[in-house]
Amino acid sequence: MDRLRVCFSALHADGFLVSHLPNIQYLCGFTGSAALLLIERDGSTLYTDSRYTFQAKQEVSKSRVQIAKRGLLRAVGETLRRQRGRRRIAYAPSHMSVAQRGALGEGGGSRVRWVDGGNAVEKLRAVKDAAELATMKEAAELISEVFSGLVTRIKPGVTELELAADIEYAIKLKGAAGPSFETIVAAGERSAWAHARPTSKPLRKNELVVFDQGAILRGYCSDMTRTVFLGRAPDNVRQMYHAVLEAQQAAKEAIRPGVAAGAVDAAARRVLRGYRLAKYFTHSTGHGLGMEVHEMPRLGRGEKTTLEEGMVVTVEPGVYVEGVGGVRIEDDVVVTSSGARELTTAPREFLEL
Amino acid sequence: MDRLRVCFSALHADGFLVSHLPNIQYLCGFTGSAALLLIERDGSTLYTDSRYTFQAKQEVSKSRVQIAKRGLLRAVGETLRRQRGRRRIAYAPSHMSVAQRGALGEGGGSRVRWVDGGNAVEKLRAVKDAAELATMKEAAELISEVFSGLVTRIKPGVTELELAADIEYAIKLKGAAGPSFETIVAAGERSAWAHARPTSKPLRKNELVVFDQGAILRGYCSDMTRTVFLGRAPDNVRQMYHAVLEAQQAAKEAIRPGVAAGAVDAAARRVLRGYRLAKYFTHSTGHGLGMEVHEMPRLGRGEKTTLEEGMVVTVEPGVYVEGVGGVRIEDDVVVTSSGARELTTAPREFLEL
Repeated sequence: MDRLRVCFSALHADGFLVSHLPNIQYLCGFTGSAALLLIERDGSTLYTDSRYTFQAKQEVSKSRVQIAKRGLLRAVGETLRRQRGRRRIAYAPSHMSVAQRGALGEGGGSRVRWVDGGNAVEKLRAVKDAAELATMKEAAELISEVFSGLVTRIKPGVTELELAADIEYAIKLKGAAGPSFETIVAAGERSAWAHARPTSKPLRKNELVVFDQGAILRGYCSDMTRTVFLGRAPDNVRQMYHAVLEAQQAAKEAIRPGVAAGAVDAAARRVLRGYRLAKYFTHSTGHGLGMEVHEMPRLGRGEKTTLEEGMVVTVEPGVYVEGVGGVRIEDDVVVTSSGARELTTAPREFLEL
Repeated sequence: MDRLRVCFSALHADGFLVSHLPNIQYLCGFTGSAALLLIERDGSTLYTDSRYTFQAKQEVSKSRVQIAKRGLLRAVGETLRRQRGRRRIAYAPSHMSVAQRGALGEGGGSRVRWVDGGNAVEKLRAVKDAAELATMKEAAELISEVFSGLVTRIKPGVTELELAADIEYAIKLKGAAGPSFETIVAAGERSAWAHARPTSKPLRKNELVVFDQGAILRGYCSDMTRTVFLGRAPDNVRQMYHAVLEAQQAAKEAIRPGVAAGAVDAAARRVLRGYRLAKYFTHSTGHGLGMEVHEMPRLGRGEKTTLEEGMVVTVEPGVYVEGVGGVRIEDDVVVTSSGARELTTAPREFLEL
């Protein structure tokens, strides 16, 4: 009940309709794919559909469960319409479509005033408690082991898809629910695509290969990138690698409670500028990580969010040069009173295989 | 350009802002994870961010590409604000959040009138062309082969997660991009959860096991469910299985162009009513399938959408009895002039292993 209460009391509204599934899971434990959670002063109600009757019974103890027969939005609307007096109900505009909002407006009737609840749950979720941190450490170690176990299989002739399949297989065999996003294995020119999907392209000698992978362990994500070279790397590639590694180290050292997220991004960018590589660093330095693979805070240019103890973020500078390829190195770290503590354990030296 | 033109001309607006990623991919070929597509009379513009500079260049030929430096919504707003006169821009209210809509309203300025474009692209996508059907047949055959190859591994002691890992590994090795959704392997009591996630629970003798799996092959999904029993099934379980299979057959026979989607659902439900099992059939009979695993049309109770030649749907009645377990049998079929043609090839006899 704690999380539910904290969340509700922060809003100064008569009710809070939570529509984003990870937020619902965080607040009441339900993991199904269709749900709405209405938090009110006297308790909370989870709305789901008949596919989840048994599952909701097993997973949810702190909220009432209502199985909606003719649509979740309609059921919530009917609940609200039955209540007396004018009411202010908060919701998250970034997690509700215009169509859903329209249906709720009609369903709830004219006595409900819908107010912007912002990202109240995301803010709570950004700071992890001890149990969450323990799970995330395990998730990060799991993916580190998966990659370390794969290294001997990375050689010319094997395809990107085969390696991605090996990674995802190992993730499941180690007890994770699955990958936290579609595993990226990108070789040669495609390593310069920051988000390439693996193809049936076989790896060749003298190519960079980027591996970006993560696992969902008991509901929490890890996210890790390693870049290797097949053969002996030319000097420009080796320099790219060391510049990115140095940028990553600088970003980690900039992390501590009270610092703005943008300052961490600036630290990475500053190092790359020294190597004249800043213009090839085309994304943010990192992002929050937890039940979702992208959470608050974003470690991006000019981001003002202040880092707090217990936040978990990725640190993943990258450099992508068309015709040469890409290098990205990514670790998960937790913000502690003494700075960034690494959760990821896989080695970061440049592997020339 | 064809799909873009068809889509635009159906709308009677000055522009159409497409925000749903599968719709964008369908219309212009871009597969990245951040994009907006603005279709106007004189052509179309894809907005994406700098992570996708190279990828957009390779994938998109029919639309201009604009790399947005400070957010896609802002870039679209700036484009619209620069244009002369009042303009009506269509969008899909079900694929735009209230927050995004607010930002666009501000960004585009007061001369833009935002109008409901409904689900214009989804309607186009529901009817597949010959090339799409060929790919979907391959995707359905692929998952059929994956399951058939797994059967000898299904035995007491192996865990749900191991079998799910085997399935997803085989999916990738056969050249698919990956599973089209998180593979379901649910044994014993959990087989009565229509959407259970696999756990580290080992299979035991005398249990029902539900396997629900699919593959994404060159952008198109398959989706197939098979249910097996470990050991010799008791009569009530065997009857459940045959009732579900008969319901599935009845639903398939109800499929032809011109029929309402709800009539297909009714055909399955009628059979189960005869076995007094209708109340345990807690979901719809099926759903459209294509680039997404749930598309139009939904084969649900009372659905009025008319089936058309070229639509691909799943047919998947299921019965879930607490304490006994669940049975679901699911195939992918295409609507042809002479009725449903099965794409799924895995056998449907009851396997007692």
